[in-house]
Amino acid sequence: MGLLIQLLRRAGVTGIASPFLALLVSHLPAFSADPLPSWNPGPTKDAILRFVAQVTTPGTRDFVPAAERIATFDNDGTLWAEQPVYFQALFVFDRVQALSPKHPEWQTQEPYASILRKDFRTALAGGEHALVEMVMATHAGMTTEEFSDLTRKWISTARHPATGRLLTDMTYQPMLELLAYLRSREFKTYIVSGGGIEFIRPWSEGTYGIPPEQVIGSSIRTRFEMRNGRATLVKLPELSFIDDKAGKPVAIQHHIGRRPILACGNSDGDLEMLQWTEASTLPHLCLFVRHDDAAREYAYDRESSIGRLDKGLDEAAAHKWTVISMKSDWNQIYRGALKPTE
Amino acid sequence: MGLLIQLLRRAGVTGIASPFLALLVSHLPAFSADPLPSWNPGPTKDAILRFVAQVTTPGTRDFVPAAERIATFDNDGTLWAEQPVYFQALFVFDRVQALSPKHPEWQTQEPYASILRKDFRTALAGGEHALVEMVMATHAGMTTEEFSDLTRKWISTARHPATGRLLTDMTYQPMLELLAYLRSREFKTYIVSGGGIEFIRPWSEGTYGIPPEQVIGSSIRTRFEMRNGRATLVKLPELSFIDDKAGKPVAIQHHIGRRPILACGNSDGDLEMLQWTEASTLPHLCLFVRHDDAAREYAYDRESSIGRLDKGLDEAAAHKWTVISMKSDWNQIYRGALKPTE
Repeated sequence: MGLLIQLLRRAGVTGIASPFLALLVSHLPAFSADPLPSWNPGPTKDAILRFVAQVTTPGTRDFVPAAERIATFDNDGTLWAEQPVYFQALFVFDRVQALSPKHPEWQTQEPYASILRKDFRTALAGGEHALVEMVMATHAGMTTEEFSDLTRKWISTARHPATGRLLTDMTYQPMLELLAYLRSREFKTYIVSGGGIEFIRPWSEGTYGIPPEQVIGSSIRTRFEMRNGRATLVKLPELSFIDDKAGKPVAIQHHIGRRPILACGNSDGDLEMLQWTEASTLPHLCLFVRHDDAAREYAYDRESSIGRLDKGLDEAAAHKWTVISMKSDWNQIYRGALKPTE
Repeated sequence: MGLLIQLLRRAGVTGIASPFLALLVSHLPAFSADPLPSWNPGPTKDAILRFVAQVTTPGTRDFVPAAERIATFDNDGTLWAEQPVYFQALFVFDRVQALSPKHPEWQTQEPYASILRKDFRTALAGGEHALVEMVMATHAGMTTEEFSDLTRKWISTARHPATGRLLTDMTYQPMLELLAYLRSREFKTYIVSGGGIEFIRPWSEGTYGIPPEQVIGSSIRTRFEMRNGRATLVKLPELSFIDDKAGKPVAIQHHIGRRPILACGNSDGDLEMLQWTEASTLPHLCLFVRHDDAAREYAYDRESSIGRLDKGLDEAAAHKWTVISMKSDWNQIYRGALKPTE
């Protein structure tokens, strides 16, 4: 700001009231530092910077009006880690533990019995279906506000079983930079996750800068109910929507009503979202995160315990989507990686 | 702007480059004209102005951060007229006419036969259910983009059967002012309609200044499909969600994830949305439009051919919601009312 004041003074601007100047300066575009310092120089970073410059430069053929600058990001494995299990499963396991005194039948009933024995691998053997069942069993009956409070409290202390880090510190620093950079260029950034919409919302604004109305996810049904004379929504043990695979474009259209011009995923579950984005008639960018860094994160770019990824990677190659190698493209993986104990 | 330049000059600001000054001025709050000129002076207008001042004045007890300034508006009967039938029904009738050559069975099959005879009253005797059936029969098979183009084209010429005015000119001028005023005070304005989400979106931005991602409504299911190698969403003849009555708070939570602090409706279908808003822990305002102006619009504030309104009005009185009398509170009803032939 000092430099700008000097320039303005040289240009003959004197005596301007400082609040006015602060206001003025706060609306000038930043023209200095690298917006993506955790990204190594190279074709991936170049592709991102080139695309953003291309669609935000007025008067050019590829200019896209701000209103159409929709960017959608998968969450698990794209914005934060997803190994050894989806982090939301850790929340569900904790709920099963907390509610088990009221459910003596869970001691012998699967998958609950495995969770209570801390055998999480067996508990998740039933895949997505088993997890959804547990979500419904442990969340039903709460109001949306009770659930939101519970989630907010849980995420503030929940730690990763292997690294011991706060889960919110296992968000990817390069992605936090990319989200902020896109917003600084008037993109609207959305999460489009297979995870629970109400699980992500309570902490998405603080963690990613993404407000609740820009979170899209899987959901269970709710029912409007007056409780003690106050209007509430109560969670039901009924599935509403699975926001995965072909569900992602369906949900994007339902919530946003515009095609994204930028989408980013990391698994076969994100394929249709990327195809939907690729079919935009506006200039667009499809990004695909490759988990190829066994030393700093995990390497599972073809298959993993939580699902296949090979189709996505093959499509990415075939369609020339921009593949992000965690190993080569990122000089830092996690947020606050330098201070792991904080 | 001239006055401000003079003031700045008097304050010693000279020689400032004009683009800088324009930028500066464009970010100062407007401090002049009545933001609601179509609203008559009185308690209703006062309540609105007082509420907005109250929640937007920093440092006061009732201040609400901009992110929480969510305002939800019903559409039919709240933002535009809804007599003699919901305007979307006119669209559906036109679709039935257009598609009838391909459906010879409609000549004898109700409600289609009545529509083809232009007996709209009989056609709608089946109520919401009949309308939803017709929506599904006439919209299924189209892609979302084909439907959007069709709707945009239709609304650009569709006229009201009684007034002959463009339907978009039967939007209420005082409501257009209220929406713009709220946005100027950093509210995010939403439509929450029993009408079709995809029917409203193509023209909501141009008509109301409300972008597609802030439109919530009823919906039919879609299926992701590659057509000629291009990712599309195809409309199915299956109901997804009816955004009416208790469905409104459910949909508000699903799309926005925050309780509104301002809601406005006009019928029993809006009751639960208003109750949901009333239960906010933040300062809030519930508005209820009363159709009591037979001369300039329609008078049907207790019952009408399209549904009951008495419960809403009784609740409004009991809960001291702010009732907007079209007759007393509005000095102009429709947009562009002075130039009906344009």
